[in-house]
This record gives sequence, structure tokens and C-alpha cells, in this order.
Amino acid sequence: MVLIGKRCLSAFCQRVSKMYQPSFVLPEGSKVADVKCKSHRLMMEAGLIRQASPGTFHLLPLAMRALEKLIKVIDTEMQKVGGQKIAMPGMTPSSLWKTSGRYSDYGPELITLQDRHNVDYCLGPTHEEAVTDIVAGEKTLSHKRLPIKLYQITNKFRDEMRPRYGLLRGREFLMKDLYTFDSNLEGAEETYRSVCEAYQRIFSILDLPIVQAVGATGAIGGSSSHEFHLLSEIGEDHVYHCSRCGYAVNQETVEGVPSCRDHLSTPDCTMSLRQGIEVGHAFLLGTKYSKTFKADFFDKDGKPQLAEMGCYGLGVTRILAAAIEVLSSEKEIRWPQIIAPYQVCIVSPKEGGAERSAIHLAEWLYQDVCLHVPHLAADLLLDDRGHMTIGRRVKDAAHVGYPLIVVVGKRALEADPKFEVINTASGSTEYLSKVDLLQRMETITVL
Amino acid sequence: MVLIGKRCLSAFCQRVSKMYQPSFVLPEGSKVADVKCKSHRLMMEAGLIRQASPGTFHLLPLAMRALEKLIKVIDTEMQKVGGQKIAMPGMTPSSLWKTSGRYSDYGPELITLQDRHNVDYCLGPTHEEAVTDIVAGEKTLSHKRLPIKLYQITNKFRDEMRPRYGLLRGREFLMKDLYTFDSNLEGAEETYRSVCEAYQRIFSILDLPIVQAVGATGAIGGSSSHEFHLLSEIGEDHVYHCSRCGYAVNQETVEGVPSCRDHLSTPDCTMSLRQGIEVGHAFLLGTKYSKTFKADFFDKDGKPQLAEMGCYGLGVTRILAAAIEVLSSEKEIRWPQIIAPYQVCIVSPKEGGAERSAIHLAEWLYQDVCLHVPHLAADLLLDDRGHMTIGRRVKDAAHVGYPLIVVVGKRALEADPKFEVINTASGSTEYLSKVDLLQRMETITVL
Repeated sequence: MVLIGKRCLSAFCQRVSKMYQPSFVLPEGSKVADVKCKSHRLMMEAGLIRQASPGTFHLLPLAMRALEKLIKVIDTEMQKVGGQKIAMPGMTPSSLWKTSGRYSDYGPELITLQDRHNVDYCLGPTHEEAVTDIVAGEKTLSHKRLPIKLYQITNKFRDEMRPRYGLLRGREFLMKDLYTFDSNLEGAEETYRSVCEAYQRIFSILDLPIVQAVGATGAIGGSSSHEFHLLSEIGEDHVYHCSRCGYAVNQETVEGVPSCRDHLSTPDCTMSLRQGIEVGHAFLLGTKYSKTFKADFFDKDGKPQLAEMGCYGLGVTRILAAAIEVLSSEKEIRWPQIIAPYQVCIVSPKEGGAERSAIHLAEWLYQDVCLHVPHLAADLLLDDRGHMTIGRRVKDAAHVGYPLIVVVGKRALEADPKFEVINTASGSTEYLSKVDLLQRMETITVL
Repeated sequence: MVLIGKRCLSAFCQRVSKMYQPSFVLPEGSKVADVKCKSHRLMMEAGLIRQASPGTFHLLPLAMRALEKLIKVIDTEMQKVGGQKIAMPGMTPSSLWKTSGRYSDYGPELITLQDRHNVDYCLGPTHEEAVTDIVAGEKTLSHKRLPIKLYQITNKFRDEMRPRYGLLRGREFLMKDLYTFDSNLEGAEETYRSVCEAYQRIFSILDLPIVQAVGATGAIGGSSSHEFHLLSEIGEDHVYHCSRCGYAVNQETVEGVPSCRDHLSTPDCTMSLRQGIEVGHAFLLGTKYSKTFKADFFDKDGKPQLAEMGCYGLGVTRILAAAIEVLSSEKEIRWPQIIAPYQVCIVSPKEGGAERSAIHLAEWLYQDVCLHVPHLAADLLLDDRGHMTIGRRVKDAAHVGYPLIVVVGKRALEADPKFEVINTASGSTEYLSKVDLLQRMETITVL
């Protein structure tokens, strides 16, 4: 407890006055596409991101905090389904992509370079070739060692013709990609089901209404696929979706309007065409890559067999932006609670104002929360910018979207002190005593 | 407690039989340089890394676990000195490097590419230009907002002429780079001291004997610098070092043998020339970059002033390999205890052997540790490969270097059951009862 107290008093006391949060506005003459994208604009205004070049972005401290929480959620769920974390280099020898045939298939979206010895590399947009080459490198792989499930969370590269919408469609972005190797099709299908369930859990933890749609297999190859969409008018995919039974199909995969009744036999189901932001996908790849790279294993009879593969992606930075896109108003960011950069922002009184004698109370409250609700200590922020009015700072905090804003104002100085507590998700405001406030904070889930 | 128990019984029970840990040997005809590098060979043999191309490596699950722990140590210490975490893209517009003049200075080690619109990019080996451009983007920066300390832990790229020694000299590697902006030279010097102290703390937590040497400023520019070295014959830097007073200087910065007495006045000090692996550096940059990119702020009198900058690097993947290089024997990896991939490896009896009835005891012990020492649950491994002898598996565990190996063997079946406990760091072995073993485990520090 003393330690926590000490931490609060020194380096761990997160103060808004010290936070690097530069606000940027879209440059004049910005494309209409960028201006109409709410998440892009809000993330720039709130100092979460800054454009580095078209389609590449600096992630600033508040965005990094949310991102690292999101990564924790994903890591936990990947490991629950047996995923083991690795990291493959961004620079991939082009020879691997020539072997698979994708070097030419992928077209100009593949970023290529030559090293000083004129050897060709590409910057991996995805790593089927690289990971299959690793597994193929094991010459005596027994069926007992399967399934193998390897995932990474690394920067991927795709030279979009028209990068736009901030982190929603960038050229360098963070992606989680899982690759699985099973000893037969039934095993691969079981793995597929378990990973799709893990994806459902991730979006459930984030409290995001995910739509799992039958997808096209596209250039990646393979026999079946699902896409995971967040419905939004900014989305660039078109999905037939039934809001009643939840069945969904990517428009690309069907001719005309599909009927969900065929699949689920629910009366009153109707499919409507919606726009979706694709934040995840799952592919059953079969043996396309294991055959090319000779990724085989020895079965029970000692005979070599090709591994049945699957690949599963989540756009990590895209989820961050897409969540903001679907949850926020035009003026204020709203986060999935669990990944908000900070859970609570305490606003101190204005210097020189009527409540100035309550300034020290804000510091005390901060320390009391650290002492009595230690699990919240790292998620607590103090807006100590005393030269600004309380109103202005509450507006700032609501703009960034901290789930709880606690104002130390006039009523904190009364005989029966009360703090104004604003729940930004519900929009409700109430006045709580310190004891009630601490009890409320006990209930906040943090990662 | 029940939850922890449940976790142990299912997905969180880490079993060696399920771990992806493919052993690789150096290909025939490997360069002498690679063969003589202990850490490179050991990391390949133990299934920690696999080469993807010359100078680029796949980090496999055990290496990733150690790496993520190392990142935690670094994050904590960077945040203690006020560092705020960001992430800048790997793709950096070449125009920024042309502005600073480093595009040509850096030479062929700079990896360059063109996007589909023929715009030039380089893959950042370091990000002075990019970060200064961000700060320069703020047009009304007040002196009150300084110092600004921004760091990232991201992949960096350097096209080494002769990449070698595994993770010690690669072409794509993980680096922590901190950039600081102070309002005057005194502030910058104070920041410099605090970051060097943070570096000392990091190596102290890792229990690595770091040598802080006066360094050359080199191509990066600036007025003063220190390098942080781990002394090793594989090291490619030459450092004059006094083992008595600790004073050290990079050979490049002096003519002839320097005297440490001049600096510290300790009798009996003598400088000897040693080889060092540079794992960190600190540079006081002055206004070289802030001037070029117009990164200024308004001082107390409202006048624009250039920020005094510093930059501070740590080779994260290099620290991992260098630690193994200096701590390991030729045959067995030894880790800084706090970042070992797992703290404890429990070895179960052989199937069909004399102690086979103790197999279930190994599982029970695993679960008991999870229940009674929950902080260790995620750091516990069970070597359940019952088809192998205990001896072979103990050898494997010692090879990977888990700090504690617990053997459930013959004596676990006696009336007064005992477990063989091997401390790989000290080489000592003792037999402990379950109560004593659990007490011992209570004392293990984990991140």
C-alpha cells in the first residue's frame, strides 16, 4: 500500500499537463473521404494520431495505451485457443512469394525493395509463405506435435492506391495474424470453429456488435472463409445481413439477394444490404501453402502427409479506429470501456477561482484512489491544468472519452463533501461522497 | 483461487509437448563468424530463433516470452523518467532524411524503396527526423509543456554489409528509442543524467554487468554521448575499461591509452582494452534537428526558442542475445532470471518406467503450484513428454536455461515425498518436500 502511495506521489501520477497530446486538424484541401470519416477526424483532434505520410500514422501516447490494452485482450484469447506468439520480420524474401505465385498475383499493393546486394524483398502484407517455410524447415515433424498454432502481432504493409480514413485503410498497420497447421481436415475445421469463437469473445469483451459474414476466399486461396464486420456507413464492404437471426453474407459471394431462411429457417428473417468495416477474417486454406513449401508431417503409419492450414487475421489498429467510428458521436470519442486509454479523469478546480481551496483536495482524491483502489492506479488521470476552467477541461475529457470524469468543484468544499461524477457512456451525472465514489471505482474492470 | 485452478487444468497448463520449439543447427558451410558466436548457436539449437534471411530472424515462442518480459522492464523504467510511449511507422519519407542531410550521409546501410506513385521512402534505422517533425508540427508549444519525452519500441532496419552473430548484428531488429525535448541545456543535461540512470537500473534489474563508456558522437550528431556495453570477446567495439573504478572510454574517441585517474583520482586504477557489445547509447543532440525542422517553443517571454534534444537507444533484441552471450556456457543457455521464458520447469516421470505411478503427481504438483503460488502460474512449465527419460528432459530444460527444474521421480513416491530441485544458475541440487518447494517458489520474482 505504501508503495502504491509512493508511486502515486511521483512518477505514476499521470497529469494531463504533462501528457503529450497535440491536437491536429485535417490540412486544408483534404480529401472529402478523410473529412467525412469521423474516427479519423476525432483521433487527430484528440491528439491520438498524426499522419506521417499518406496512409501511415504516428500513434501518440493515448492511442498507444488503448492499443496495448487491445493487444492484451487479443493475446489472452489467442492463447486460450492454443496460439503461441512469434514475430516474423517485415522484410520477406521475394523468392518465397515467387514460389507461391503471389508475387505477381498481389500486384502493385505489394511493397518491394532491393537490399545492397540487389536481393529482392517485399514488405509482408501477410505471412503465409514465411510461416509455412518455418514449419517446412522441420524435417521430422510427428503428427503428435500437431496442431501447431502460431500468431504474431506485427506491422504489415500494403500499398493502397487510395489510402484513406486514417487507421481504417492505411499502408502500414498493425495486424494479428494466426496460422494453424492440423493433421487432417476435421482437425482444421475444429481449429477454425475455435478461432471464430475466440474472435466472437474478443468483440464481446469489447462490447462491439460484430457481424460474422460468409466471405469470399479471394487471392489468399483456400476453401472457406468468414469475415468479421462492424457495420458502418464508412465501411467499404457490402454485406447482406439479417438483424433478426444474425446471418450475414458478403455481397461479393452471392448473386442477387440471398435468403437467410435457407440457412437458419427462422420466420420473419429478412436480409438487408449494409456497409461493413472488415476487422477480421478467417480462412480455411487447405494444403495450398503446405504443398508448395512441402510442410508435411509423419502420420501414425509413418507416412508423410501435408498439413491442413488455416489463417486468421485481425486488423488491430483498424479495430481501434473502427470502434471509435461506431461508438462515437460527431463531437466526442467513445471507447470500448475496457480499452479506454484511462478509465477515470479527475478534474481539479481552477486556480484563482471560487473553488481554488479545493485544489489540494483533487490531489488527495487522486492519492486516495491509488491507495484504496490500487488496481485503478495506472488508469487514473489528473487534469491539473488549473489555468483552464473546469468546464473547458470537462469538455476536453469528454472529447477524449474517458469513461468516468470526476469533478472536484464547489460541493467538495461543503460540510458533506460531494464530487460530481460524469459517466460519459450513459451521459448521466451524479454527486457522490468520497466513500461512494471509491466504492463505484472498485467496480471498474481494468486490464 | 478456483479460477486459477481452472486455468491450470485447461489452456494455461503449459506443456512442453505442445510447445513450438523446433531445433535448428547452423547450415553447413556457415560463416566462421556465425559458428563462433555462442548465443546465435544456442538460440537456434534451443528453438528460440530461426533465420529468415541473412540478418533477419523469426522469433519463436520462447524468445517472444523473454522479449516481452524485457520490454516490460524497459517500459517501466522509461515511464519512471517521464517517457511516453508512441509508435512511428517503419516507412519514413526520404524527404525528411534529405532535409536533415542524413539521406546521403547514412550510405548503403539505409534501406530505401519507392511506393506505387514513385515517392521515395526509407525504412527507419532511427527516427530523429520523424519525431522532430511531429514536435515541430505544434505551432504554439509553450515552455510549460517541456520537457517532452517520447519513446517507442519498434522494428528498425539497417542494411549491414555483413550481418552476423544472430540477433547481435541483424538487418531488422527491435530497438527502444527515446527522444527528448528540453527548454534549455541544463534541462537537457538533467534529462540525460536521468535516462542514463534508468539504463543503469535496467541492467541492474537484469543483473548484467554493464559498462558505461564515453562514446563517439558519430553520424547522429550532437555534443556528448555515452555507450552501454556488455564486455565479451564477440563484441565489435573496443573499450578502454578500468575494472576497479569502472571508468570506460570507447577507443575511437581517444588517442593512445587514456588515464582514468585524471577523471576519478583513484589510485591503482588501470585501463585495459576490452571488447564490448554495444547494447545502448545516449546522445545529447543539442539543436541539430530542432533547428533543421524548426521544432521551437515559446519561452517565458513569449520568444521562440529551439528545443534542446537528446536521443537514447537500447537494442532490445540485441540485449536478449548479448545477455545469453555473456551468461551462458558453451552448452547451456543462462538468462537474466527475471526474463527467463519460464521460471520453473517440472519434469514428470517416464511412462512405463519404475516411477510411472508418479506421473499423476507431476500434474498434481503443477496444479498445487498454480493454486498456492498463483503469481507463478503463467511462468510454470510441465515437461510431459513421458516417452523420454527424465535425464534427457532435464538436459533439455538445462539447455534452455529455466532457472528452476523440479524433477518428480522415485523419491516423490516415498513415505516422506521429496522432489529434486535443480537451480541451473548455481548448479546446485537439493531434495525438498512439497511444503518447502512451495515456500521456495513463493520467493521467485516474476514480471
